[in-house]
Amino acid sequence: MPFTAFSAPAMDTYVLNLCTKNPSNHQMKHYQSPICCQAISNAREAIFVRAPPPALSSNPLYSLRIGLPMRSSRCYSLDIKDYSASCSNKFQLDDVVESQQFDTDILNGIFEVAYEMEKIEKNSQGSNMLKGYLMATLFYEPSTRTRLSFESAMKRLGGEVLTTENAREFSSAAKGETLEDTIRTVEGYSDIIVLRHFESGAARRAASTASIPVINAGDGPGQHPTQALLDVYTIKREIGRLDGISLGLVGDLANGRTVRSLAYLIAKYQKVKIYFVAPDVVKMKDDIKDYLTSMGIEWEETSDLLEVASRCDVIYQTRIQKERFGERIDLYEAARGKYIIDKKVLEVLPKHAVIMHPLPRLDEITVDVDDDPRAAYFRQAKNGLYIRMALLKLLLLGW
Amino acid sequence: MPFTAFSAPAMDTYVLNLCTKNPSNHQMKHYQSPICCQAISNAREAIFVRAPPPALSSNPLYSLRIGLPMRSSRCYSLDIKDYSASCSNKFQLDDVVESQQFDTDILNGIFEVAYEMEKIEKNSQGSNMLKGYLMATLFYEPSTRTRLSFESAMKRLGGEVLTTENAREFSSAAKGETLEDTIRTVEGYSDIIVLRHFESGAARRAASTASIPVINAGDGPGQHPTQALLDVYTIKREIGRLDGISLGLVGDLANGRTVRSLAYLIAKYQKVKIYFVAPDVVKMKDDIKDYLTSMGIEWEETSDLLEVASRCDVIYQTRIQKERFGERIDLYEAARGKYIIDKKVLEVLPKHAVIMHPLPRLDEITVDVDDDPRAAYFRQAKNGLYIRMALLKLLLLGW
Amino acid sequence: MPFTAFSAPAMDTYVLNLCTKNPSNHQMKHYQSPICCQAISNAREAIFVRAPPPALSSNPLYSLRIGLPMRSSRCYSLDIKDYSASCSNKFQLDDVVESQQFDTDILNGIFEVAYEMEKIEKNSQGSNMLKGYLMATLFYEPSTRTRLSFESAMKRLGGEVLTTENAREFSSAAKGETLEDTIRTVEGYSDIIVLRHFESGAARRAASTASIPVINAGDGPGQHPTQALLDVYTIKREIGRLDGISLGLVGDLANGRTVRSLAYLIAKYQKVKIYFVAPDVVKMKDDIKDYLTSMGIEWEETSDLLEVASRCDVIYQTRIQKERFGERIDLYEAARGKYIIDKKVLEVLPKHAVIMHPLPRLDEITVDVDDDPRAAYFRQAKNGLYIRMALLKLLLLGW
Repeated sequence: MPFTAFSAPAMDTYVLNLCTKNPSNHQMKHYQSPICCQAISNAREAIFVRAPPPALSSNPLYSLRIGLPMRSSRCYSLDIKDYSASCSNKFQLDDVVESQQFDTDILNGIFEVAYEMEKIEKNSQGSNMLKGYLMATLFYEPSTRTRLSFESAMKRLGGEVLTTENAREFSSAAKGETLEDTIRTVEGYSDIIVLRHFESGAARRAASTASIPVINAGDGPGQHPTQALLDVYTIKREIGRLDGISLGLVGDLANGRTVRSLAYLIAKYQKVKIYFVAPDVVKMKDDIKDYLTSMGIEWEETSDLLEVASRCDVIYQTRIQKERFGERIDLYEAARGKYIIDKKVLEVLPKHAVIMHPLPRLDEITVDVDDDPRAAYFRQAKNGLYIRMALLKLLLLGW
Repeated sequence: MPFTAFSAPAMDTYVLNLCTKNPSNHQMKHYQSPICCQAISNAREAIFVRAPPPALSSNPLYSLRIGLPMRSSRCYSLDIKDYSASCSNKFQLDDVVESQQFDTDILNGIFEVAYEMEKIEKNSQGSNMLKGYLMATLFYEPSTRTRLSFESAMKRLGGEVLTTENAREFSSAAKGETLEDTIRTVEGYSDIIVLRHFESGAARRAASTASIPVINAGDGPGQHPTQALLDVYTIKREIGRLDGISLGLVGDLANGRTVRSLAYLIAKYQKVKIYFVAPDVVKMKDDIKDYLTSMGIEWEETSDLLEVASRCDVIYQTRIQKERFGERIDLYEAARGKYIIDKKVLEVLPKHAVIMHPLPRLDEITVDVDDDPRAAYFRQAKNGLYIRMALLKLLLLGW
Repeated sequence: MPFTAFSAPAMDTYVLNLCTKNPSNHQMKHYQSPICCQAISNAREAIFVRAPPPALSSNPLYSLRIGLPMRSSRCYSLDIKDYSASCSNKFQLDDVVESQQFDTDILNGIFEVAYEMEKIEKNSQGSNMLKGYLMATLFYEPSTRTRLSFESAMKRLGGEVLTTENAREFSSAAKGETLEDTIRTVEGYSDIIVLRHFESGAARRAASTASIPVINAGDGPGQHPTQALLDVYTIKREIGRLDGISLGLVGDLANGRTVRSLAYLIAKYQKVKIYFVAPDVVKMKDDIKDYLTSMGIEWEETSDLLEVASRCDVIYQTRIQKERFGERIDLYEAARGKYIIDKKVLEVLPKHAVIMHPLPRLDEITVDVDDDPRAAYFRQAKNGLYIRMALLKLLLLGW
């Protein structure tokens, strides 16, 4: 059905509060009306009531219940006060679960929205874009850093938050309520769920169950897609491009969720070169190496951190955990000493290059590096805010 | 004093921000004025200042301090922008502490407000009804499900929340600050308290101490009034009536706080028939049976779940906890097997009937029941949101 | 650059949304323009766009990026709707870390703002003064009382909150992320940090690191400046003056953070007399006594509580902890019995005098004292809200 009524000023202009919500759970009615529109799911439910313009001034809220095709491709947003209408395309993803969901088109689109978010966050008294929307942060294990980042993102956009870092408590009384049941309860109280879980695959299960969007804030050792996105976005913002970059991944490459996701995503770009710098006991696993090879990405394994640092646009450092070395404390101590980012690295690092780290950082980057403009790790953490603001906007309102 | 000024358009119309708050704690002044009104306690403090209409446009905020009789029966709400006035009656209850506070008139009134809340929650970008109001969720034991439900209710109405699931911490430093002292501190920071406590009677103590409304979110084994309300509301919404229904209560009837409260409340309606289906070791206690008899409610104890299911409008399932059986694990296992809601029950359950459960549910309802439209337990959890929105509105703003 | 444009009505009046934020982190541009202004850091970034008045009605948001000198002394706040402008001076402090930061001028200024906050909190549906601002409550040890007080303060002013009482979790994954690193991450997500820490000096370290304001909510045994401020404010509000008062400090004077800070601050006033009433094992330490002597403040040590109570304007009671007495349980029991505020004290206490206590209180003030109008401890807790509202306003918006 055409959305022409809104673009024809000669017709009645109606003040509309359009939003859709979980249409699959609500009864749908269809109306024959020149004022009809399609609206997406994952937004608030659309309500319209026609009324002639004179009534407009006395009752600005119009409601007309309309048909809501499931997951249609168009999303309309109307501003009550402005009597104007705009329309936008729905975000291609219903949920953000894993890095594998993103191709370079979607990535570049998200990065543009994140850049807009930078401006919003810096330049005003906040936004009302997500006013009326509720985000439930459902954390089955604590991660205060990630939680505060998401909550700040929602609040900077005028939205609200329900929060728990102790979601396990949902199950404690029953010694085992399923994640699915918890999701089905929490989705009644919110518009979007941000899930942190200790089990791999939990986010996919939650997304399959939920009729509202789910964002994976990290599930087990496998996926932490928003971290991957903010890492790639940081490289884009700091270096200016993604094609043709040289990237040095340092530290615990075998287990590091962040470096594995970063390698996976950056391989979607062109002419990327990756250096792996890690002690043997935690070197990058074959699955990522084989994947890079299949994507035509050049990679090299080396133990010379300074040599790599002199050639890279980005040095991405991660912490090496003692526990990975078992009884070989000697190997651990050797590794720690060898792969530290300090002033010696700064001396050889190119002027334009940057040092990144997912944080928290201990002594694998010395504090005397922090004041160098190439130390990008706190700007990187800040980019997490922009990426998360972008995802909230895209999942709830569309492009 | 009559409130006529507002209903006579010919008189000066003033833009008023009327709210009252804890009048007993504020100094009161009395004004001789044609613009006078009574306002209730438990709302924000009323401020009026008279000014002639021309001043209206330059200074929309008028303030006149007025007398506030304690707990008067009328509540006035005025909308600054609209220059209109409305008045409403105060809610009969100052606090929601126990199921015994509700007669069918109040219940039906609450259910009407809850139904309005369904529309508000579905159909708009949220409400500003409780903008400026602060709810303190004071949980002395965690219950994330209940807490998120209340917090969502407050936020959907535009209100704000202060929250702790660790209220015991108030006492930890002092090894024993009384609940009363904590209430007297927290009421200074909020407009309404939602209390969850491990001791029976804590909510009544809190309500007696507080000069703002208190809602009992569960205190010990005894009372969880909002759960009882949402259960009865669910029956009303699903079946269409409360008089004349047949209700099967299944599971741990001796200890189950929910089934006991539900039996208590449903007995206020007419021609209700209740079936008790429970293992002997956890059968419904005599106090409820005697109460039902005294209310003229028919009840029957039986062990035939399928027979009962074929006759009921509502089957209300609860979990049987192993701990109740002590050493008789054999009896426990027999009970678990016998009183499970599964597809066999669905086959005999009437088409219009529903299955309810307070959640969390484990295996006492099998997951293959979930997709049947008669599985009402997640709609039931959602109704908790509407009931709580209704109570917040009634306690803070009146009918 | 003069800010004259705004004070000359004849000139173009522009609707401006002025806020500044972390200017050191943002690129600065300078404009030649009659509409130019200086703005402080620690507020949101100023955005202006000039437009002729006709455009005003169609696009109320103007933006013009302006130069932001670091920590300049003037702070401008403009109200979009009102087309008016005001300007104010920046608060002298960038952070609130310790009682030593306050002289009587600043104290009296803060108290005036707190009094205004009393009116705001009582008399309206809340304020929008801090709309768009985000406070991060970063608690490394729990203190629900203090946390809820700060969060209520922020929300009563229309601001928003990110919260954790488990900030230690930031470090847990890394077994030791520094406080400085955590601050550098959290400041990206918020506009002001309220820090509670177990180590003395943590607040100073946080304030030195952060580019946004930090308020010390208590760090170790040493400082809890907002408590000290609310205590002095309470005396001012209850007695009507600070000069010339007689103050009895009772209980654990050796270790009590509150009495030590109160003695320190009250000594800045004139003609104050202080009585110390404490068991020997916890008597006031020499550092405070020497300081008082150096400030010309009369003080006296005595064991006669009733005698002191008959002479004082304020009796400030604190709890004596058993642990301080080691094995001498007998001394503890004697002390507890001797220094209790009960009806006997009320009998000798002057009519105008008050009893204060930082709370939580156990049996060192008997409950039968509570209803006496001179029992000021819950009004004292409420004053904590007003003082914190004042500090949030001063640090984010200036005077």
